[in-house]
Amino acid sequence: MSKITYLDYNATTPIDDRVLDVMLPYFKEKYANPSSKYRFAMDIAADVEKARTIIANCLGASKSEEIIFTASATESVNHAIRGTLKTHPDKKHIITTAVEHPAVLDTCKDLERDGYKVTFLPVNNKGELSIDDFTNAITKDTAIISIMHANNETGVVFPIDKLSKIAKQENPDVIFHTDATQSIGKIKIDMNKEYNNIDLLSMSGHKIYAPKGVGILFARTGSRLRKFITGGHHEFNKRAGTLNVPLIIGMAKAFQILDEELKEKKQEKLSVLISRIEEEISKKIPYITINGKGAQRLSNTTNISFDCIEGESILFQLDKLGFCISSGSACTSGSLEPSHVLRAMQVPITSAHSSLRISLGRFTKEEEVAAFIETLPTIISRLREISPFWDKKNNKPNDKAIQYSCQS
Amino acid sequence: MSKITYLDYNATTPIDDRVLDVMLPYFKEKYANPSSKYRFAMDIAADVEKARTIIANCLGASKSEEIIFTASATESVNHAIRGTLKTHPDKKHIITTAVEHPAVLDTCKDLERDGYKVTFLPVNNKGELSIDDFTNAITKDTAIISIMHANNETGVVFPIDKLSKIAKQENPDVIFHTDATQSIGKIKIDMNKEYNNIDLLSMSGHKIYAPKGVGILFARTGSRLRKFITGGHHEFNKRAGTLNVPLIIGMAKAFQILDEELKEKKQEKLSVLISRIEEEISKKIPYITINGKGAQRLSNTTNISFDCIEGESILFQLDKLGFCISSGSACTSGSLEPSHVLRAMQVPITSAHSSLRISLGRFTKEEEVAAFIETLPTIISRLREISPFWDKKNNKPNDKAIQYSCQS
Repeated sequence: MSKITYLDYNATTPIDDRVLDVMLPYFKEKYANPSSKYRFAMDIAADVEKARTIIANCLGASKSEEIIFTASATESVNHAIRGTLKTHPDKKHIITTAVEHPAVLDTCKDLERDGYKVTFLPVNNKGELSIDDFTNAITKDTAIISIMHANNETGVVFPIDKLSKIAKQENPDVIFHTDATQSIGKIKIDMNKEYNNIDLLSMSGHKIYAPKGVGILFARTGSRLRKFITGGHHEFNKRAGTLNVPLIIGMAKAFQILDEELKEKKQEKLSVLISRIEEEISKKIPYITINGKGAQRLSNTTNISFDCIEGESILFQLDKLGFCISSGSACTSGSLEPSHVLRAMQVPITSAHSSLRISLGRFTKEEEVAAFIETLPTIISRLREISPFWDKKNNKPNDKAIQYSCQS
Repeated sequence: MSKITYLDYNATTPIDDRVLDVMLPYFKEKYANPSSKYRFAMDIAADVEKARTIIANCLGASKSEEIIFTASATESVNHAIRGTLKTHPDKKHIITTAVEHPAVLDTCKDLERDGYKVTFLPVNNKGELSIDDFTNAITKDTAIISIMHANNETGVVFPIDKLSKIAKQENPDVIFHTDATQSIGKIKIDMNKEYNNIDLLSMSGHKIYAPKGVGILFARTGSRLRKFITGGHHEFNKRAGTLNVPLIIGMAKAFQILDEELKEKKQEKLSVLISRIEEEISKKIPYITINGKGAQRLSNTTNISFDCIEGESILFQLDKLGFCISSGSACTSGSLEPSHVLRAMQVPITSAHSSLRISLGRFTKEEEVAAFIETLPTIISRLREISPFWDKKNNKPNDKAIQYSCQS
């Protein structure tokens, strides 16, 4: 493998060696099914419960039973939303935002086919929600509100503590779910303090240096939630299927490491690097937009649009040099549609098409950031030189670009 | 860890070292999200597709797209049954058997709550289905038939090739699903030959020496199946969620090894050991029943009832000596209810309560089987000596036992 500069931590993270180390014995020796009733298996079941307790403590859960292990954040989201709707058959309204991850967005769209009414709250051009819009959307018919904590594409953070409080004031019966996949480990979340109005929370292992294939659904005690995957009494009769022991053990270790890092304020280091990227790129490259600038954002993420060129072309050039960066979210980047998040932020279609998401993480080195800052301006210049939307003489977008941008 | 004699391969299997070896690079270096659009990620996506093709070939699938990766057989079963019902909203009838794994059984019971009518086909005292019962159960309203291939508790094999053929003759629109979790690798399955009337097949990695947390849903081209987990276009838009790359890679290797073993007829070796257990135990211990004897059975499984004692007590004594054996299936063994499989076979409640399942596998040694045969008779004698149902003088069940047994 040639040299890789990985700047796409919001797509997935490498597994931390410390996480893999604690997992390996459960692949190699401790292989019993934790549901079995002999010591070899019961010792493993006990290790799973220890892992659950560690995670519960890290999240400020009141009881370890509030942590349900799933296979992904996507499964958790399906469980949370569909499971809630099934226990509230008389309520047909869902509130979410226009900028959710596809896990929530597509699930809500799928539910529309089954007769549910979904309010997709808009955002302003910084990617922020209107508190008034949010408050006004809540009705007696609202079964569940699902609002992400931090946006995967822009890093914009929603004030879910405040929103969930308002939700309960407006309608005490409403269930508040949050997709916290991108915020876990970046923002300290205590479900018993400022986040105590949140009923359900979904997240995934592979964004926190644990493996792909394991997720968590936090379900506050008392949440009425019909089982999503049926077929056995695992997970306090909440989720059927043999426990994925090694990955669960890994998840707990990943949480412990995050907790240490949150105490040591490691995210601040990333914030410095992100600021450096934004400042340097702004200085070196004209006609760019930092999407979400001015909003509260994750310290590891920046999303930048470069007028008059395709994001895919930039990625392609960066890729040839080993830079791993995303345009739009990995889940939707197979399509040629511009990002639904940027479109919701009223980013002109030309700019939405030309966006890059840079997301840093635990193993990002200053040199990698420096190399990126060094490399990008040349690529952008070259691509603009061959762009039909670029006025080479005056080094600015041409009339065609302005016309196209105004159309959309 | 003290010495373990693992005779519970139907509960879960150890991971084969060869499987773990191919997985490790995907934990350590090849960590990118296969949905991302740079070479580092696309190479991994290509490896996933190679894995899919290997599995498709092993199963005789026409196209690799017929293989959908899931997180468990349980998820696959939910996807198969619920996904089929959603695309056939006018049909409200399901056919299954009384002896299915909880993955199918509890899913069908859950669907009864939603207004579906479920026929749970009975079995005879050997655990076999009646072809007439089966044929008569099929109506125009039948949306899906879900019948397991091999029973996890008794090893009894259902003739799903024949049953699926009858099903299509009776009602060409009916969808036939099979839970093949226990048969994969023990019986050669070619979806394009004798099993070509089966539309959907579910199975799990952790029963074939791959890890827990990965499953497969085979969905024949043309199967109309609404998505079960929504939220992204992964898996040909059939199952959302970031691909669990290392486990998928491991699954393919596990299939390759199984295929070699099927060619080498390795199961016959286990069949010899199972026969030895049954013959020796029959000789050494009176008042036992081999459940499913006379039916077609898996070569690795035996289920034996020991009159007048509790299965749990036998397990406890065996466990003290390091023998890992199951009573009933691992998924339900948390409860004190006797096995639903044995009850369906009209095994008297006293015998159902006293059953052991011994299941052998790839790493079972002759010495382990010999040690088990050597150990068990003493344990059974001692437990019967203290049993209120045992006539110590005449070494047979007492009147109380006969009375109790007749009641139930």
